Amino acid sequence: MITITAYDWVPPVVRGLVRDLRIRWALEEAGLPYRVELIDLRNKPDDYREWQPWSQVPAYEEDGLRLFESGAIVLHIAEKSPALAPADPAARERMKCWLFAAINSVEPPMQELALIDFQHADKDWAKVRRPMVVEFVQRRLKGVADALDGREFLGDQFTAADLMMSTVLRMGQRAGLVAEAGLGDYLARCEARPAFQKALEAQLADFKDAA
Amino acid sequence: MITITAYDWVPPVVRGLVRDLRIRWALEEAGLPYRVELIDLRNKPDDYREWQPWSQVPAYEEDGLRLFESGAIVLHIAEKSPALAPADPAARERMKCWLFAAINSVEPPMQELALIDFQHADKDWAKVRRPMVVEFVQRRLKGVADALDGREFLGDQFTAADLMMSTVLRMGQRAGLVAEAGLGDYLARCEARPAFQKALEAQLADFKDAA
Repeated sequence: MITITAYDWVPPVVRGLVRDLRIRWALEEAGLPYRVELIDLRNKPDDYREWQPWSQVPAYEEDGLRLFESGAIVLHIAEKSPALAPADPAARERMKCWLFAAINSVEPPMQELALIDFQHADKDWAKVRRPMVVEFVQRRLKGVADALDGREFLGDQFTAADLMMSTVLRMGQRAGLVAEAGLGDYLARCEARPAFQKALEAQLADFKDAA
Repeated sequence: MITITAYDWVPPVVRGLVRDLRIRWALEEAGLPYRVELIDLRNKPDDYREWQPWSQVPAYEEDGLRLFESGAIVLHIAEKSPALAPADPAARERMKCWLFAAINSVEPPMQELALIDFQHADKDWAKVRRPMVVEFVQRRLKGVADALDGREFLGDQFTAADLMMSTVLRMGQRAGLVAEAGLGDYLARCEARPAFQKALEAQLADFKDAA
C-alpha cells in the first residue's frame, strides 16, 4: 500500500498548487491506489522531519520505503508505469531531461514570481524585482514552447515530464505568462486528463474547510 | 565516446561554479573519458538550442543520445556506475531523493542569494530582499545538516547525491552560510576527492584566458 502526505489546510491562493498534486496525479495515471496522511501545516509533528527534511509535503511510503521530493517520487512512480514513461530507453532518458528541466530550470523563476505576487506584491523591493523575474520566466517558457513546436507533448506521448511541466506552468497562470508564451493549449491538454481532474479534486477535498 | 559542452569563458566570480563541473566530476568518478565542446557564452551557435532548450551548458552526447539538465545527466551517469550509486534498490531511491533535494529544495534559494551577491549587491531592492533569502537558505541547510547528523555522506557511501549537494553548497560558501550551518567539513570531504579536483582543474583550464 502507498501512503502520501498532504496538508489538511493551506491558504486559498495556493490550493491546487501544493506539490502533493503531482504525486496524486502520477498515481492516478498509473492506476495505483493510495492513502493520504494529512499534516497540520501550522503544527507539524516533530518526527515528520525524519521523513521529510524540511517538514514539507509531499512525502511517500511504499512497503517501508520512505521517499521525499516530488521529482524523485514522480520518477519512482513513472519507472513502474508505462502510463508515465515510454518503453524506449532513449525516450526515457529524454523524459528525465524534461522532468529535471521543469523543476530546475522553469520552476525556480516561476516560484520566485509566485512568491512576489502572492506574498509581497505591495512591497517596493518586489515592484523593482518583479520585471526581472518576469523576463526570466518568459525566457524559460519560450524554450519550452520552441521545444514543443506545436506537438502535443514534450515527447511522443504524455509522460511524467509533461505532468511535472504542467504543474509548474500552473504557478504562472495568474500572471498571464503561460498563455502569452503560447503554452495555454499545452497546459489545457494536460489538465484535461481525467487523472489530473481526480487528483485535483482529491487535493481540494482534503482541506478541512472544503465546502 | 562522450561529449559534454562547457563555456570557453565566464566572469571570474562564477568560475568553478558553472554546472558542467557536475558532469566532469561524475565522469571522473565513473572513470569515463570525455571530450569537451566549448561554447562561446557571448556568441552561442544558433543550432545549439536544439540540444539545450535555453542554450546553456552543460549538454551531453553519448552515441547519438543527446541529454540536457545537469540533474538528468548526472543521474544517467550514476545509473551506469557503482562509484556514484549504491547497488541496493532502496538506497538508490534514497540517493535520488537527495539528488532532487539538492537541485529543487537547496539550489533555488542558494541561486537567488548568489544572484543578489554577484550581480545586485549594491541595489536597494536587493538589500531589502537579501535577509529573507539568507533565512531561507539557512533553513534549507539546517535540514541537510540534521539529516547528515555527523555521518560522512548523505547515504552509506559517497553517491551522485553528495556530488550534486556539494556543488550546490559551493554557491553559498562566499556568504559564509555553509560553515555556519556546520556543513563545512562535509563540503571539504566532497571537494577533497581526486575526481573533484581533476574536474575543477579541467573546467578552469578550458577558459580561454586561463593563466
